This record gives sequence, structure tokens and C-alpha cells, in this order.
Amino acid sequence: MAVTTPLLDTVKIPADLRKLEKSQLRQFADELRAEMIDAVSETGGHLGSGLGVVELTTAIHYVFNTPDDRLVWDVGHQCYPHKIITGRRDRIRTLRQPGGLSGFTKRSESEYDPFGAAHAATSISAALGFARARDHLKKDNHAIAVIGDGSMSGGMAYEGLNNAGHLGTKFIVILNDNDMSIAPPVGAMSAYLARASSSGVYQGFRNFGKQLAKRLPPALYSKLAKAEEYGRGMVTGGTLFEELGFYYVGPIDGHNLDHLIPVLENVRDMKDGPVLVHVVTKKGKGYPPAEEAYDKYHGVTKFDVVSGKQKKGSANAPAYQKVFGQALVREAKEDERIVGITAAMPSGTSLDLFADAFPDRMYDVGIAEQHAVTFAAGLAADGMRPFAAIYSTFLQRAYDSVVHDVAIQNLPVRFPMDRAGLVGADGSTHAGSFDIAYLGCLPNMVLMAAGDEAELVHMTRTAVEYDEGPIAFRYPRGEGVGVELPERGKILEIGKGRIVREGTKVAILAYGTRLAEALKAADMLDAQGLSTTVADARFAKPLDHDLVLQLVRNHEVIITVEEGSRGGFGAFVLHFLADQGLLDNGLKIRVMTLPDIFQDQDSPFNMYETAHLNAAHIVERAREALGMSATVINLRG
Amino acid sequence: MAVTTPLLDTVKIPADLRKLEKSQLRQFADELRAEMIDAVSETGGHLGSGLGVVELTTAIHYVFNTPDDRLVWDVGHQCYPHKIITGRRDRIRTLRQPGGLSGFTKRSESEYDPFGAAHAATSISAALGFARARDHLKKDNHAIAVIGDGSMSGGMAYEGLNNAGHLGTKFIVILNDNDMSIAPPVGAMSAYLARASSSGVYQGFRNFGKQLAKRLPPALYSKLAKAEEYGRGMVTGGTLFEELGFYYVGPIDGHNLDHLIPVLENVRDMKDGPVLVHVVTKKGKGYPPAEEAYDKYHGVTKFDVVSGKQKKGSANAPAYQKVFGQALVREAKEDERIVGITAAMPSGTSLDLFADAFPDRMYDVGIAEQHAVTFAAGLAADGMRPFAAIYSTFLQRAYDSVVHDVAIQNLPVRFPMDRAGLVGADGSTHAGSFDIAYLGCLPNMVLMAAGDEAELVHMTRTAVEYDEGPIAFRYPRGEGVGVELPERGKILEIGKGRIVREGTKVAILAYGTRLAEALKAADMLDAQGLSTTVADARFAKPLDHDLVLQLVRNHEVIITVEEGSRGGFGAFVLHFLADQGLLDNGLKIRVMTLPDIFQDQDSPFNMYETAHLNAAHIVERAREALGMSATVINLRG
Repeated sequence: MAVTTPLLDTVKIPADLRKLEKSQLRQFADELRAEMIDAVSETGGHLGSGLGVVELTTAIHYVFNTPDDRLVWDVGHQCYPHKIITGRRDRIRTLRQPGGLSGFTKRSESEYDPFGAAHAATSISAALGFARARDHLKKDNHAIAVIGDGSMSGGMAYEGLNNAGHLGTKFIVILNDNDMSIAPPVGAMSAYLARASSSGVYQGFRNFGKQLAKRLPPALYSKLAKAEEYGRGMVTGGTLFEELGFYYVGPIDGHNLDHLIPVLENVRDMKDGPVLVHVVTKKGKGYPPAEEAYDKYHGVTKFDVVSGKQKKGSANAPAYQKVFGQALVREAKEDERIVGITAAMPSGTSLDLFADAFPDRMYDVGIAEQHAVTFAAGLAADGMRPFAAIYSTFLQRAYDSVVHDVAIQNLPVRFPMDRAGLVGADGSTHAGSFDIAYLGCLPNMVLMAAGDEAELVHMTRTAVEYDEGPIAFRYPRGEGVGVELPERGKILEIGKGRIVREGTKVAILAYGTRLAEALKAADMLDAQGLSTTVADARFAKPLDHDLVLQLVRNHEVIITVEEGSRGGFGAFVLHFLADQGLLDNGLKIRVMTLPDIFQDQDSPFNMYETAHLNAAHIVERAREALGMSATVINLRG
Repeated sequence: MAVTTPLLDTVKIPADLRKLEKSQLRQFADELRAEMIDAVSETGGHLGSGLGVVELTTAIHYVFNTPDDRLVWDVGHQCYPHKIITGRRDRIRTLRQPGGLSGFTKRSESEYDPFGAAHAATSISAALGFARARDHLKKDNHAIAVIGDGSMSGGMAYEGLNNAGHLGTKFIVILNDNDMSIAPPVGAMSAYLARASSSGVYQGFRNFGKQLAKRLPPALYSKLAKAEEYGRGMVTGGTLFEELGFYYVGPIDGHNLDHLIPVLENVRDMKDGPVLVHVVTKKGKGYPPAEEAYDKYHGVTKFDVVSGKQKKGSANAPAYQKVFGQALVREAKEDERIVGITAAMPSGTSLDLFADAFPDRMYDVGIAEQHAVTFAAGLAADGMRPFAAIYSTFLQRAYDSVVHDVAIQNLPVRFPMDRAGLVGADGSTHAGSFDIAYLGCLPNMVLMAAGDEAELVHMTRTAVEYDEGPIAFRYPRGEGVGVELPERGKILEIGKGRIVREGTKVAILAYGTRLAEALKAADMLDAQGLSTTVADARFAKPLDHDLVLQLVRNHEVIITVEEGSRGGFGAFVLHFLADQGLLDNGLKIRVMTLPDIFQDQDSPFNMYETAHLNAAHIVERAREALGMSATVINLRG
């Protein structure tokens, strides 16, 4: 480690920080920034957003009495500096590694993380809960939410503000405005904040002062008036928040500790009422390669600290994301009705490829999944062919939109669902574990899962051509298996799977990319003299009844396998068989799903190893069903 | 029918309305109001909100070219006047009746309903979809959303505004501000709108005029200036919406057609940009009994038109809602940590009883289910015992909050889930069909269903005492079965069901209130010489493995029955049995769930008849499994 950090070395926890003089904080922040850069250069992870809040993190922990004061970071990917100074510096180089620190805030990790996050826009609601718990329990701690401007496009943030403004209890929201969330900013709120930041009109803070004057003792007010000087010339209106019942302070330069500290002290000492502090920061601040990069190094691999150059792994096959993006562009050339919709994930979903090719047909609606889906439903109702590309885990945010606006009305919205199954370093909050269950229970839905990247091309084409109702198709994060890609997809017959490999004794029915493990398992079983069929279900709904019946009739054991929770594909197969009376006379069937636990981050292979869903586990289940081994697998529940 | 409606009789569809002179519209509206009152007096339904928009409905269809212009009503329960003048007057007395008109907007019912609704806050997103489809398809129709102030507490409405303000396309939002949604208004937005309505400062409309002047031909501007006169003195600021990129007009008196018509004409003729028209109406307007009632006759039974007196059915047993509310009050007397949270449904969930007893511990957060759940999670994280009482269908809106904020963090939020199963007159949009599937797939969740109203008392107590993680319990709409209620509930053992009746040949395992039908079925089967056990599972998760094993070992046929979709309780039972190898040697098991269709409104009994979930169907399934009848039931999928 090349970093020299004499002040940081004295700070294990925030109580240590609060022993420093204010004059030492600038150097402290510089050391904290250097330490963070060094750590992330070794681990990879979210860099830009953490760099942007080094001074803010320092100021908050200096002014507030954490952990008694409850500090809730929205999303949590900006929390690396926070972790370093809240007792976790010794493990900071395990960030996002197997068994290491989470890349997000996490309750089980530290008392300084009173509320974990990873999805956006939850912090205001959660912190308001802490504020009211304090009131009920007659305690006097503070509750603070730190939320980025990107998260402010989420409706949940507005719901929280609306309720807080109504309740009127003491409660602090710090709006970290870096004008740059994951993607470039979108939405009217973002434009509003930009105006507020750039107008230079001095009024908001003065209003704040006037309001305070009515409720504060004179001594405190004069202190405030002094603080006001620091802010002069950088403070402007915040009428929108004031209309919602908040005191508004700002904008404040979020990298200037001489401004941050007195303002936060004043806010801390207010007697009641919700207050919003508008802090302007720069994502990637203080590390030139990040500041200069288009995405401000939002997420990075390991990198060289001096040059900023990221170390890229070599891929054997194209990523599913890219395959989907290219297939959609290919289809959109033929069909002007295709439009793309993303909720602040243009690059993550590869819809940036679509946006490059068809900028007028692309919508990035911000972190607003509900709107994305219902907006798509409106487009579909008038004859467009919308693709609402949302990660499986984020589509949870839009569940009622899928049910109420899409499925009930049977509107042909297409749902490419990225990040299906376990996702590796992002851990449990980003796993796409539940979509088969939560969509499979809905009438009218068609559900597909790609067995490999060529199948994804076919499914993209199939979704384009399917106008009878909603259709969703899932695929994992990461690279494919290396099969040859067709120039253009073919239209799959709805509700029909395929036999990939024929055998006689064991049948493995895979839904999605466990197909590769199923094929490996078949090799292993064949080698043990157990002739094995492998089928790719393609559809969880409608289920391919003929295929299931064929497998049942011609094999001694049936194994279903999927990268999803219980209540999904395997459950639909079982239900069908029970309905048909096909369990009445005995059927050796095993249903392999994700275990009933939230799994911490690890490599995807290791996560599936923990989940008992790799080839060796499939072999084991088949042998157990055949009475050839007595191992019983029972992962909780 | 006592109503005389000479003008209304000439109007079958809006094109007929547009042939009337403006001077005739006042009388037309009066006739429309009278017709609506008369119809709802016969059918029951939503009365107050329809009465409030009689003039607005008239003005919109007079000014805009529906159905080519796409009109989207938020929630849809205010659409009865709209239905009367869009070709459905001849069926208006079938509202909410079996086989009749839906109580909400519905695409399949009319081309004048381009987008159906029943949940709140979706209209802006949907109408924006229509606006953009128009742009893509190079058409010139309008897209209009009509949204109530209550719906404006929903985050989704904000997401839609935020995106529309950014896109800048021509698009019209009419904010119907009646200061009264289902419950009294809550939230800072509501207070903001009240200030805007009452301040009387004349500026918003003038700004609007100035903005228009830049973009309109002079002739049109002078027309506008004239229109301005109508509005003088009633027009005020709308900075909040202007900051979000909208032109703001209003507030306008929503019962004065001389104001409404010219303003809507001007808005219609604007060339581009999103515009928000703030219309102030009175819920229940024009019908004194409704105007005078506390709830403005939001939802009514059949009533006498002259007196306004509603005809009440006689109940044999208390409603589940009330049983829950009373049980929670009983528990809250013992425990100060219990707080109640509702999303604008205080009376529907009976949390109004709790609010009366403990006003300081009750939160109505508005139509903001996501915030409700994450706010509850924050409260739980600091040791409170929050009950987030949300209908099963509305909890869909908070799904990601349940997954990300509650389940992953294993926080003890209590979820009383009202309206589980089929709900009768409210139809498919309000059915609580999916919660067993969408919650059952989540690790850490405990799921219960009340078999009768005494069980609900026990489950309320059990939920109070369970601090280990999230716990949800479901119960239906409507009255119980008449069992004796305990003074206070007992604490149930987590994951343990109960045998209700012992038999030897058939076992019926019920989850929830199909228990009553299971007992009836057992009587019928016994009478046929088929000795039948009935068990109440109580828990879908964790499943009572011992109970399932006991039933399997001692009976020839097992039937599971639940008021939920596929992928729920029955699926969990099947999965467990497959895991254990208990299907290997034959097991006659049948899983009875709701069919894979969205069911239209009917009486609950009839809906369950259609669903094949009544006692006779259970008998039929048992006999079929025993080889005693060959009937195969297969309701789609």
C-alpha cells in the first residue's frame, strides 16, 4: 500500500474523527480519498460515487453522533468512504469479494449501517421510519437520509418527501446532487436541480434563515447568520421542496468542508420540521482519470492507480446483454414500431446500442420502473411494440404495473429481463431470483428463458412478433457459452420446448442457462451408464405439456432445473402432473431451484455451488432419485 | 325511472354531444347527473367521485374528439358519467352486477376506454404512452390524463410528470382536485394544492398566457385573453408543476362549464409541451345527501334517491376487517410499540378503529404503498412493531419494498393482507390472487391465512409477538363464518397447522377461508362413504411438514385448496413432497387454486363457482382422484 494516511490512521470509528480539529478535516478527507482509491484499485467496484462524497461523509460523521444518529445512504454504492471510517478499514480490500464486505450498506455488517440498500430511492422512507421511531420511543437522536439526484427520479422518494412534509417531524434529507447517477441525468426534476444549482440567485438560504429566526434562540440565530456568510453567492431557491413542506438549504459546495460543517451543524440544531440540504458534488472528484471519464468511473474493475487504466478480463463469448442489444437493433431495422425503454440502465441493458441506432425511439425514463412499464403499456395499447428492458430485480419495483396495466389488459409489452438468476459481486439485492414465480402466477403472461445466447436472439425475434399479450424473457448477467449466433433470430413456437440431447433413463428439463450444467451432468451420468436426455423448456408459460409428457413416459427419473426461487418453473411442472393424475402411480421427479435463502456475493459459479445447482448436484439428485445414493439435500425451508 | 332527460336522450356517443350548443350544456350536465344518481341508486357503487366530475366529463367530451383523442381516467371509479355518454347508457344499471358493466374503465368494454384502471396513479404514465405513440405514428390526436388529487400522493404519478416534463411533447394532465380521495387528504402535496386553490393570487394563468403568446397565432391569443377573463380571480400559482416542466393553468371551477370549456379549448389548441389544468371540484356535487356525508358517498349500496338512505344488508357475522381492527386495538393496549400504517385505506382496513384509539400511533401515508412498507421497515429496524395493513392487490405496488427493504433485511414488519382471494363487485383489478405466490418465493417470510375469524384474532396476536422477521397474514373481504370470537388471540406456533376434522380416506388441506367449503365437502364425501379429514394449514411458510406427512401417510387422496393463484401453497406442498421422494411410489394429490384467468365481477360465491373452488368441486376432485368419476377440470393453462 503506497498511501500515507497519518490522520486516517487515528480514526477507527467516527468518535475518533470527532476528536480532530476542524482545521484537520481537509487533510483527513484527502487521506480518506487516497485510501479509497487504493482499495478499489485492488477490488474493483463502485468508484465514482464514493469519490464524490468523501467530504460529505467526513462532515456528516463529524457533525452527527453516529451510530446513535441514524444515517441512511440511498442505494449504498457510495458508502466505501463511510465503511472505511466506521470500523471496516481493515476489511475494505475485501469489498465485493467472496466472504468480504458488501458493496452496499448492510445491517448485518455494522451498527453504522442502520438500514441497508442497493436499489434506489428508499432512503427517505426508511429514515423517516427512524425519525418516527425516535419520537415514539422518546429518544433524541437524528435521522438522516442521503439521496442522490438520480434517485430523485424514483416515485418512492417523492412519496417519502410527501409524507415527511405532512408529518412535520424533525428529519434531515441531504440531497447529493452530482448531476450524474449511473447514466446521464434525465427527467424534469434533474433539470430543476440544475437550474437551482446554476442560477446563483441568493434567496433560498435567506428564507431558511428567516424561518429559523422564528423558531431558534437568538444566540443560535446569530450563529446561523454567520454560517450564512459561508454560503453567500452559492445559495438559491428550493421552492419545489418548500412547497412540499421542507425547509430548504442550499445549494452548498459538497467538497468544501468550511461550508458543509457549519450548515450541517445548524441543521442538526434546528428544533423541528423536515429539512432538505442541497449539496452539489462531482462524481469521481479528486481522481483525474475518473473525473475525465464519461461515466465518472461509476463501476470499475481492478485498475492501476497512476494511470487509471482498468484491467479487463478476456471474454470467450459475447455477453448476453450485448447479444440482446444487437438482436434488438437488428429487428428494429425491419420494424418502426419497436421502441426501447429503460429505467436508468441504458448501458447495463445494452439499450445504448439501440439508442445509438434509433435515438428517437429510445426512452430512458430515469429510476422509475413503474412509470417505465405503464408508459410501455400505453405505447402498446396504440400499436407500438415496446421493449421495457429492466433487470429482473428492478422489475419487482414495477410489479403492480405489470399486473394491473399490462397483464389484466393483456397488452403486448415485451420484457427483456436482464440479470436473471444469481449475479455475483452485487450479491443478494441484485439477484434475479423471483421473476419466474412473481410473473408465472399471472394470467396472460408468456415467459421464456434463454438456454444460451443463440436462443436469446430467437427470443428477441419471437417477442417482436408476438402481439397477443405480454411476453417476458430472462437471461443472466455475463458471457454466453460460445455457441454460434444466427444473423437473425427465428420465431419460436409459443409454448414449445426442444430436446437437446436424447437418452433413455434420466431426463433433465432445464429452464434457462442451467442448460449448460444440465449437459455437463448428462455427460457425467452417461459415463456412469445412466443414459440421459436433456431438454430445454424455453417456456415456463405456457408450459410445453407434450414435452413434459414425453419425458415422463420415456424416462425413469425427471429432474427440473432453473435459476429461480421456489414457486416457479418446477412448481408449474409439478402442478400440471398432479392435475393430470400423473403422480398417482409414482413418478420420480425432483425440482431443483435456488435455495430459500438470500445468498451473499461470491463468484456466480460459487453461488450456484452453494445453491446446489451445478452439474454435480444434478447428477447427485438423479442418483438419489434412482436410489443410488442416500444424500438428501435440504437447504432451509 | 323517474328522471326526465330530453337532452341526454339525444346523446348516445360524444359525437352527439358535440352537436349541442354551448348554452345547452348546463342542462345536459344536470340531466347527466340525475341519470347517474338514479342508476347508482339501483346498483350501488362509487357515487361521490362520479358526481364531482359530471361537468368535467361533459366538457372534455365536448371539447376533445374522443375516442380518437385518448382519454385516460385515473382509478376509473369516477367514470360512470363517462360511461353514460359513451354508448353504455343502456347498460348503466348493470354496473358492478354479474355480467354487467365494470365499475371501472375497461378496454374490452368500449373504444372510449383506451386504458383501463382501478388502482391509482397510473393515468399520467399511460396517457404519456399514448402521446408518444401518436408522435411515432405521426398522428395528431390528443392524449389526456384525468387524475385526482388523492392519486397525486402516489409516486408513480410523480414519475410520470417527471418524464413528461422532460420529453416536452404535447400532453394534457387534468388534475381533478376535490380535496378528498377515499379518505381525508394527507400529504404535503395535498396541502400544497389546498394553498394553490385558496390563495386567490392571480398569476398562474397570466404566466400561462404569456407563455402561450410566444407560441400561438395572434388570433388564438386574443381568444385566450378573452378566456382569461372567465378565470380572473380564481387563478393562482402552480410553481411546483412549472418547475417540473409543465405549463400550469388553474385552478378552475370544475362545475362551471363557462370556465371549463374555453380553458380546455385553449389547452387543446396549444402546439406543444405538457400542460396541467388544475380543476377544483366537489365530491358528491349536486346531490345533497352525498355533499353532506363525511365520505361524500364514496362507495354506496343501493339507496333511496329522495332521502339518500342506503339499504343495508343484514350480516350474520362480523366482517374480517372489523375483527382484525378490534384485535389490533386489543393488542395495542398491551404494547406501545404497535403502530398502524395504511395507504389511504383507513376504513377499508379497519385501521380507523386503531386511529380512534391511538391517534398518535397511526399513519395514513396516502396512496403510497412503497413508502408505507419501507417506512414500516425503518420503524421496525428501531424496535417498533409496525402493522402495514394493505390490501393484497395493492401490496403488489410495494413488492420491491417487501423484497429489498423487509425480507432481505429480515425486519419484523407485520402485513395484514385484506381482500385476499376473489372480491366480488370490484372484479379482477381488486382480486387478491397472487400474494401467496409473490410472497411465498421470498426467503425469511412467514405466511399465514386465517381459516375463520377466530383464527384471524389468533394470527393478529401471533404477528404482534413475532419479532424474528416479516410475517404476513391474509383474510378475505366480507363477513366471517360466525364462529365465537376469543376475547384475546392466542399465540400460534409458527409453522404448525391443525386438524379440524378426522377421517381416514380423503384428506383436504385448506389454506385460508376455503376451510368452510372444505368442511362442507367433507360432509358430502362422508355421506358418500368416503371418510374425510380436514386440516387447516394456517401457514404456507414455513410449511407444516409433519402435518403434510401425516395426511399423506394416512389417506388415499390429498387435496390442497387455497384462494390464490398457481405457484402458491399447493405448489409448496408438491415441492416438499417431490424433495422427500414421496411422489416416487405414487400419491393421489390434487392442487386446487384459482384458475389462470382474470375473472370479471360477480358475487364471491359465483366467482368461486367459476373458479371451481366450492365444496362440490372439492368433492369432484376427490372422486376423480379415486377413479370414481372421469371429469377432468382444466381451466386454461
